[in-house]
Amino acid sequence: MDRLLPWLRLQLTPGLGRVGLMHLIEHFKTPEQALDAAGRGWPRLPGLRENLAAMVPEASFPRVQSACSCLDSMGGWMLSFWDPDYPQILRQIPDPPVLLYGCGSLPEGPALAIVGTRHPTDFGRVFTEQLAEELAVAGVVVISGLARGIDAAAHRGTLNGGGRTLAVLGCGIDRIYPAENRRLYQQIIEQGALLSEYPPGTEPLPGHFPGRNRIISGLSKATLVIEASRDSGSLITAEFALEQGREVIAVPGGVDHQTSYGPNLLIKQGAHPITEAQEILEILGIGKHDNKPPELAQPSLFQLPEPAGSVLNKLDLTPRHCDELAGESGLTPMELSAILLQLELHGYADKLPGGRYIRGRRPH
Amino acid sequence: MDRLLPWLRLQLTPGLGRVGLMHLIEHFKTPEQALDAAGRGWPRLPGLRENLAAMVPEASFPRVQSACSCLDSMGGWMLSFWDPDYPQILRQIPDPPVLLYGCGSLPEGPALAIVGTRHPTDFGRVFTEQLAEELAVAGVVVISGLARGIDAAAHRGTLNGGGRTLAVLGCGIDRIYPAENRRLYQQIIEQGALLSEYPPGTEPLPGHFPGRNRIISGLSKATLVIEASRDSGSLITAEFALEQGREVIAVPGGVDHQTSYGPNLLIKQGAHPITEAQEILEILGIGKHDNKPPELAQPSLFQLPEPAGSVLNKLDLTPRHCDELAGESGLTPMELSAILLQLELHGYADKLPGGRYIRGRRPH
Repeated sequence: MDRLLPWLRLQLTPGLGRVGLMHLIEHFKTPEQALDAAGRGWPRLPGLRENLAAMVPEASFPRVQSACSCLDSMGGWMLSFWDPDYPQILRQIPDPPVLLYGCGSLPEGPALAIVGTRHPTDFGRVFTEQLAEELAVAGVVVISGLARGIDAAAHRGTLNGGGRTLAVLGCGIDRIYPAENRRLYQQIIEQGALLSEYPPGTEPLPGHFPGRNRIISGLSKATLVIEASRDSGSLITAEFALEQGREVIAVPGGVDHQTSYGPNLLIKQGAHPITEAQEILEILGIGKHDNKPPELAQPSLFQLPEPAGSVLNKLDLTPRHCDELAGESGLTPMELSAILLQLELHGYADKLPGGRYIRGRRPH
Repeated sequence: MDRLLPWLRLQLTPGLGRVGLMHLIEHFKTPEQALDAAGRGWPRLPGLRENLAAMVPEASFPRVQSACSCLDSMGGWMLSFWDPDYPQILRQIPDPPVLLYGCGSLPEGPALAIVGTRHPTDFGRVFTEQLAEELAVAGVVVISGLARGIDAAAHRGTLNGGGRTLAVLGCGIDRIYPAENRRLYQQIIEQGALLSEYPPGTEPLPGHFPGRNRIISGLSKATLVIEASRDSGSLITAEFALEQGREVIAVPGGVDHQTSYGPNLLIKQGAHPITEAQEILEILGIGKHDNKPPELAQPSLFQLPEPAGSVLNKLDLTPRHCDELAGESGLTPMELSAILLQLELHGYADKLPGGRYIRGRRPH
C-alpha cells in the first residue's frame, strides 16, 4: 500500500488527467519524485495546467485514504503502465490507461471482447451464453463490461464453460454496478479478474463508459458485437477496436429487430459476419479447423420413445411456448411438461423464461 | 410463325441440346439451311452426335405444331441468340440460351434479380414486397422466377409499385406453375414479360430450374437473395451470378431462423449485405451516391495486403490449381479458398473449371 499511496495522490489531483500523469512520470520516472518536485512546481509538460502541482492532495486526504484501504480490504492490486505485468496488448493502443486497478488474476491467452445491448432478445441472450461457453472451452479469454444484457450473458457463459473472463468497469472495482450482477461479480473475481482505470470509490458516471470501452477492445484481439441497437455503446467499442487495428466481428440479425441494427451496420462496414463459435476461433487463429462445434442436437431417437421425438422436431432456435407445443402435439400439459423436462435434462432443449423452449445445442 | 417452325423443329430434335444447336446455326447461318442439310447429314460439330440429323422431327410433328400454335394463340414471340432484340446482358454469360420464348414486352433498364425461399417468414414476404415496390418506383426492373414465396412477393411488390417485372420460367410460358400464381402470371404479361428457354408445352421438370436460374441472374446486374435455407435454389442463382461476374446482394437474417442460413452464408462469402432499397440502388449505380454510409477503416482484404496480396501475386493468365496455390502459400485449403473467393468477388481472380484460377481481367 506504500507503493499505492503516491500514485493515488497524483491520480486524484483535480485537473490532472491521463496525458498529464503519463508525461509527469515519463519526466520524473517515479510518482515519489513527481510528488517531491510538486513543492517547487512542475515543468511545462503536455496535459499539465500551470500551478497544477499545488493541487496535489495530502496523503491523509479522505479519498486517497479510502481508495487505498478499499483496495487493501478487497485484496486488489494496481498496475502502472511501466509495470512489467501491465498487459502488453493494452500498451499498444493510442491512449493506454496509466493505472489499472484490479481484483482477481489477470487471465492470459487470446482474448475476445463480447459486447452488445443491455436489452437483448431471449435468443440473443441464450446465443451469447452458449457462444461464450463454447469459446471458453476452446481456451478463449472473454472480456466484457459487466453490464446487464449481452455483457452479463458473455461473462456467465464463460464461467459456465469453466473459462476465464475479465470484466472492465466504468467505476471503481469496489462498486457492483448494476447491483443485479452481484453474484457474477463474485464469480468473476474467482475465475478471472475485475479491472478499472478508475480508483476504488469512483462512481459509474456515464462519461466513464466510452473510456471503459476502449480498454475492453484494447485488451482483445477482436471485438464481437451481438445485438446492438442504433445507440448502443457496443458500437463505440467496435469503433475503438478498429482504431486500435483489431478485428471486428458481428452476428447478423433479422431486419425486423432493432437490436440487429448495430451488427448489420458493422457487417456493411466490413466486420466479419459470424454465426458459430468455430468461425471466431478461425479469426482468432486458434483451434483446430477440422474440429467443428456440434450441430443442433439431433434426435438420435435414443432412449426417448415417441412422442418425445416429435416434440423435439417442433423445436428450433425460435422460442415456442409450451401451450402452443401442447396444442400442436395433442399432449396434455402434464405429459408435455414431462417430455420437455426430459429433453432439457438431456440437453436437447433449453428452457427460456415464460414457459418457452428452444432446441438445445449440445446433448450433455 | 413461318419463322418459328424451323427453330422448333431443330430445338425439338431429340438429343440436340443448346451447344449443338448453337454450333449448327453458327455453321449453317440459318435454321432453314441447317434443316436443308439434314438430309445429307450434318458435319462433325461440338454437341452433335453422329446421325443426329436423322432425328429432326417433321414440321407436322404434334409437339412442333402445338408449340407453334400455342405461342401464336398467346400472342407470344421467340428471340434467337442472333436476333438484335436478344438481351445484350444475356449474351455475355458463358452459356446463353439459344432461343427465348416470351410473352409481354421485355422491359429495358437496370435489372435486379430477387430470389429466395418458397417458404418465407411473414416478415420476409412483407419485406420483399416493400423492397420490390421501392425499387420499382426507382425504375429498377425486377426479375424473378414466379415461384411461390419470395419470388411471388418480388413480382407482386414490383407490380404494386407500377414497375416492370420479368418472370423466367422453368417450363413453357403457357404453363402456370405454381397454379396459385395465376393472377400474378396475367399481371406480369401486362406489366412486363414471361420468358423461358423451353418451348411452349414444356413441363416444369425439376431439372429445368438450375438452367432457369442462370437466366434470372444472367439478365440482371445483381442478384439479391432474401431468406433462403440451406438447400434453397436461390443459392444456385447466386452462384451463377458470381460465375457471370455479377454482384451478389443478401439481406442478413437472425441466426435463429433457418431461412437466414443462405443470406448469411453469402454475406460471409463476400456478398453485399443490405437492409434498405437505397443501398441496392447504390450498388446498381442508380440513385443518389452522396448519402453513402460512412466507411470505417476496417482492415478489408485489399487494405490488408497479406496474405491476399501474395495469393494474388501468384496468379497470372496461366491457370493454377488451388492445391498448388495452397502448398506455395502455406495456407490451409479453407483459408486459401476464402481468399480466392474474395479475390474472385472483387474481380481480381477468375475461377476456371476443376478448381483452377487465373488472374481476373477487370476489378469491379
